[in-house]
Amino acid sequence: MVRTIAITLSYDGSGFAGFARQPGQRTVQGAIEDALAMIMRQPIDAVGAGRTDAGVHALGQVMSFSADTEFNARSLIRSLNAIAGPGLVVTEAREVRHGFSARFDAVSREYRYRIVPGVVAPAFLAGFGWWVKTPMDLAAMREAAAMLIGEHDFRSFCVADSAAGKSTIRALELMTVEPAVELGEHCIIVRIVGNAFLHSMVRILIGSLVEVGLGKRDPVWIEDALAAQERCAAGVTAPAHGLTLWHVNYPTEYWL
Amino acid sequence: MVRTIAITLSYDGSGFAGFARQPGQRTVQGAIEDALAMIMRQPIDAVGAGRTDAGVHALGQVMSFSADTEFNARSLIRSLNAIAGPGLVVTEAREVRHGFSARFDAVSREYRYRIVPGVVAPAFLAGFGWWVKTPMDLAAMREAAAMLIGEHDFRSFCVADSAAGKSTIRALELMTVEPAVELGEHCIIVRIVGNAFLHSMVRILIGSLVEVGLGKRDPVWIEDALAAQERCAAGVTAPAHGLTLWHVNYPTEYWL
Repeated sequence: MVRTIAITLSYDGSGFAGFARQPGQRTVQGAIEDALAMIMRQPIDAVGAGRTDAGVHALGQVMSFSADTEFNARSLIRSLNAIAGPGLVVTEAREVRHGFSARFDAVSREYRYRIVPGVVAPAFLAGFGWWVKTPMDLAAMREAAAMLIGEHDFRSFCVADSAAGKSTIRALELMTVEPAVELGEHCIIVRIVGNAFLHSMVRILIGSLVEVGLGKRDPVWIEDALAAQERCAAGVTAPAHGLTLWHVNYPTEYWL
Repeated sequence: MVRTIAITLSYDGSGFAGFARQPGQRTVQGAIEDALAMIMRQPIDAVGAGRTDAGVHALGQVMSFSADTEFNARSLIRSLNAIAGPGLVVTEAREVRHGFSARFDAVSREYRYRIVPGVVAPAFLAGFGWWVKTPMDLAAMREAAAMLIGEHDFRSFCVADSAAGKSTIRALELMTVEPAVELGEHCIIVRIVGNAFLHSMVRILIGSLVEVGLGKRDPVWIEDALAAQERCAAGVTAPAHGLTLWHVNYPTEYWL
């Protein structure tokens, strides 16, 4: 019987050349599709909620696929974790309505970006946060973040080529900037929730917010950057290793 | 002028063959002494507050040394961090009273041990916690921990050879077992504060606590293990990579 199955997975982005399958490279999609093909003895095409770039981590990435198979969540999780290799773990598996797509049926996605401020580099968070040596003004960053909430044309905040001829209107629900301590080291966590994201959008938003935090730009500059509708108007692209695809939300009617 | 200097450092234990200098191996003491010798153009012997085993991390290790040198904290920190290499950062430097020893003048040491419970391995905490698949009873672990507080002969809780002919009486001030979330993953943090620790004592205490948590032993077994005064009476040695030397306390009269 052909079933559609959704799996949730976490991975340390440092071990992968990105999400999307590429010949001769270790990718998340490649590792999962290969493991599924081995388990189910049929070729599998699996789609992901977010095509994370090389180096970007995921705590709650979701992938979906259809296969002619029996379904037992525990045994599928165990088999995938035995095969898919280091730095990647499958945490959940469930059967979903036929036709479900982890990519197209997602209603919102949460990303979290970790910035590690301080004159000295972090010892433990080095692989999980962007080390920024100069002190940042969190209030200014929050002021800029508030201007990004809502529906906007984010053309300035994506890789220029990727937007050609497509709608670049997206809606941000939430963008918060909070201090935290993880593994004993101080950091700043930026949470971003939106319906969907353009290529590199989160990293360009963060890079722009950091420029505001450093005092290189005034918070209201963010509005000018949005209005300009060209990549060069926004800030730098923040490094991949500070970013984690945290969670993806779906309408519950898909769960069987 | 000969000065005595104390530095505080953090390191990811995975990059070191332990703390103590060993020929042909990368060790914390070796990396720091070599960097100091290069900066100060004289051989330096530096002593550490805790001789962490291979794989054990430190957030707030303290080392002290004497040298005929000028002292500028910022420039010493910068030079050490430029030389001492990846996975090791010096966060503080201060001049202290002559004769100060990071090892012998410490009044207490705090260690934290991270356990990662769950049927699925962690993706981010893999290098920073002991993955335990079977659910644990935290209340039982706390009951056992409470029996360890105070002054006891911890001979059962150290590497047998290391205790020959020496006092194995130590005082534990605090031992707490609390759930936490770090890097998005659930974990259990055991905090241990004591005046001093025997070789592998924290890891054997944790291994014993986990046996209680798993229901293999009753909490009161801990008292029998203490009373037995032999290594085989206590639990397994927990893996090194879950352990972090968190903080070392000194009487403030040493600071200049």
